[in-house]
Amino acid sequence: MRNPQLNAHGELIHLLSIEGLPQPVLTHILDTASSFVSVSDRDVKKVPLLRGKSVFNLFFENSTRTRTTFEIAAKRLSADVINLDIARSSTAKGESLLDTLANLSAMHADMFVVRHSESGAPYLIAQHTAPHVHVVNAGDGRHAHPTQGLLDMYTIRHYKGDFTRLSVAIVGDIVHSRVARSDIHALTTLGVPDIRAVGPRTLVPGDLAGMGVRVCHTLEEGLRDVDVVITLRLQNERMSGALLPSAGEYYKHWGLTRERLALARPDAIVMHPGPINRGVEIASDVADGTTSVILPQVTFGIAVRMAVMSILAGNEA
Amino acid sequence: MRNPQLNAHGELIHLLSIEGLPQPVLTHILDTASSFVSVSDRDVKKVPLLRGKSVFNLFFENSTRTRTTFEIAAKRLSADVINLDIARSSTAKGESLLDTLANLSAMHADMFVVRHSESGAPYLIAQHTAPHVHVVNAGDGRHAHPTQGLLDMYTIRHYKGDFTRLSVAIVGDIVHSRVARSDIHALTTLGVPDIRAVGPRTLVPGDLAGMGVRVCHTLEEGLRDVDVVITLRLQNERMSGALLPSAGEYYKHWGLTRERLALARPDAIVMHPGPINRGVEIASDVADGTTSVILPQVTFGIAVRMAVMSILAGNEA
Amino acid sequence: MRNPQLNAHGELIHLLSIEGLPQPVLTHILDTASSFVSVSDRDVKKVPLLRGKSVFNLFFENSTRTRTTFEIAAKRLSADVINLDIARSSTAKGESLLDTLANLSAMHADMFVVRHSESGAPYLIAQHTAPHVHVVNAGDGRHAHPTQGLLDMYTIRHYKGDFTRLSVAIVGDIVHSRVARSDIHALTTLGVPDIRAVGPRTLVPGDLAGMGVRVCHTLEEGLRDVDVVITLRLQNERMSGALLPSAGEYYKHWGLTRERLALARPDAIVMHPGPINRGVEIASDVADGTTSVILPQVTFGIAVRMAVMSILAGNEA
Repeated sequence: MRNPQLNAHGELIHLLSIEGLPQPVLTHILDTASSFVSVSDRDVKKVPLLRGKSVFNLFFENSTRTRTTFEIAAKRLSADVINLDIARSSTAKGESLLDTLANLSAMHADMFVVRHSESGAPYLIAQHTAPHVHVVNAGDGRHAHPTQGLLDMYTIRHYKGDFTRLSVAIVGDIVHSRVARSDIHALTTLGVPDIRAVGPRTLVPGDLAGMGVRVCHTLEEGLRDVDVVITLRLQNERMSGALLPSAGEYYKHWGLTRERLALARPDAIVMHPGPINRGVEIASDVADGTTSVILPQVTFGIAVRMAVMSILAGNEA
Repeated sequence: MRNPQLNAHGELIHLLSIEGLPQPVLTHILDTASSFVSVSDRDVKKVPLLRGKSVFNLFFENSTRTRTTFEIAAKRLSADVINLDIARSSTAKGESLLDTLANLSAMHADMFVVRHSESGAPYLIAQHTAPHVHVVNAGDGRHAHPTQGLLDMYTIRHYKGDFTRLSVAIVGDIVHSRVARSDIHALTTLGVPDIRAVGPRTLVPGDLAGMGVRVCHTLEEGLRDVDVVITLRLQNERMSGALLPSAGEYYKHWGLTRERLALARPDAIVMHPGPINRGVEIASDVADGTTSVILPQVTFGIAVRMAVMSILAGNEA
Repeated sequence: MRNPQLNAHGELIHLLSIEGLPQPVLTHILDTASSFVSVSDRDVKKVPLLRGKSVFNLFFENSTRTRTTFEIAAKRLSADVINLDIARSSTAKGESLLDTLANLSAMHADMFVVRHSESGAPYLIAQHTAPHVHVVNAGDGRHAHPTQGLLDMYTIRHYKGDFTRLSVAIVGDIVHSRVARSDIHALTTLGVPDIRAVGPRTLVPGDLAGMGVRVCHTLEEGLRDVDVVITLRLQNERMSGALLPSAGEYYKHWGLTRERLALARPDAIVMHPGPINRGVEIASDVADGTTSVILPQVTFGIAVRMAVMSILAGNEA
């Protein structure tokens, strides 16, 4: 079966997951994003690339922050953006999801930005939608968050250049994290030789090694001489049952403090997908420190989303 | 008293109801919509006709779908669209509806798109609003849903051409349906000689005949040789008391199945205002079948709303 | 310490309070607003001054009406407007307010329009935000509502001309009113010689005299020969405890009726920040009377907000 994200020419028509995307596609997105970083610096932060296009934000799972980044990205491309309050919409009147989407397609929608608590929902949508509609996964269950993965790669490339000589540690609640999953696929595809999944056994099970990462159950092993530390948000709201004693307990053992960060290379950058829990997965002085690139991640995130949307809009199914 | 929808030159200044609109006004809307159908097909789906105009969506009764169609239509005309969360607004602080509207008028609003659970509310608003504001009824109580009626007419004309030789069946919960009421007025005005209101006695009372329709209490009589079948949504949420045994029972007696559709002309089109209840008022294979034009209705709906808005904006009270 | 609202050249970079703003800054805003009043009268009510700028509405305290005026003003300046549903956003996930704002800044926000129930919140935000972000206070606690104050000044100047010969009465719940506070600072700065704070002792305490107003505990004294009457909304929702017997009791003693208005000059204008409580602080026939300028206030409010935003956007921190 053909990759549902690519057309017959191998061009991106949906962004559903980083898994399965060839390296040139990822690199093309990052290169395109470079040009949009300068757009956001200009006095008039607007380009007409999506003028007259209709972008629908379909957030079945609420996330004001991520929705906002897509809304800004689309508006800076001059698209018309429609935020659907999906919880109050026709699905509430008993209409099926696919009927709702067929209706939006019939309104000549050009793009669906989808967040959903069920893994795979954006795939289902891409599969059933009309050919003129492009689907962007803005996070599905524990599965994938590809634009976050891409903006993380943009950030790493911006600060560290060549991927093929890097050591990258991903620290924390990896098992519940779609960000970690997308990062691991992206880092692998881009040729990073040393990827470490770091955390307690409950959050970093040994079978993760199957994804091509080194599983580390101590910070000493996990952070030693890495170039990049990606700290994950402790997903309290996603955990079922008591996998962890408490936030305080977690910080004591796994929080990224200045002392622990000293294990990494002196020029190691610190990343986090946000929103951060200060004093839980990361110490405040590390989050605000000179090697933290957490806010640049946000800035690059707009450019990466502009890149994804403009590339998709240019390719025909 | 002059028709509140027309100015002294007989031009449309508000769209409140199809009842009372002369045939040339309806035909002008449909003709204008034709040009907008092609706009939606273009790569840049935007025309500057409402540039700088402020369109307010005032949905006192929630309807994400209908609001979205007006929002898209207005944005494709380059208007600024403001969605008022009317339930949380000043009316909640004890301000009267008319004071709220006077305030919006004072902000130089150009158009109010109004949905309200009370029949007649858009009339009241049109009556009291400043002369520079145009009012569009997006559905009021059981009274009228004129843009739905117009898009239905557009769809029928698109597929069937000449209205004056057609048989049209409207099937289902007619007594609670503002769509049915608007359709009947439009079909009558446009010269359709055979309009049938089809359904059980509880939902299609005999006195409907006063509107110029043939009342049919059997599908055999109602669907025989018609060119168009308009199926209505079973308005569960609108029914007070137990007029119907159950959705299953309704489907058994009145649901539009393939067998029943065979009573109509072989080229009869099947319409529905949406959202559809599959397996209640319509069978899935009919809704998705080759003669179903339910999704084209949605597409034409955008063009019809663009036509209404641009015509109103061009006419002075 | 430098005024946080002004840059080193004395230009406005945030609008947080009228208190402390020099008279030429106020006059410049009013003069700029004049040009925008004519924009709103034009057929195309749009100027490209904020094209490509991103304006964020951050309403921690809900106010559909005020948010709408800022949204309209920003859109007429061609800005991209993002309404953040701040109650559902990351702050709900435990992120601190300052972290949320740092994230929005990193998205290259240009302006934050802030309403907050805590006095001083916009100051805190202006203090901590990135230099490229301008902050507009859209009402904070009981402290200030500077754009309301400015639109009141615009209205007074429009109808009465020279500030330096006027008598202005502010009537009602002054102690809870940020509008009154902003009006008093503006009137003082613009040289109004006779400002009266009128109301019962519970709502107009004697120590208000320290602000340079004459405290009047009778309407006879308060309204006698004034040129302008600013009636305040009875802030039921803001009162703690039983400072007042009832709305009816208030109207009986302090409501602005036609008889009481006769105490003022014959050409005195009647103002109110809205939404009005008819029959509480103002009689219906006064609110709708020939000397009422309540709706012109709303119209001028859009122009004043356009003026503030365009001035801020033109000045660098």
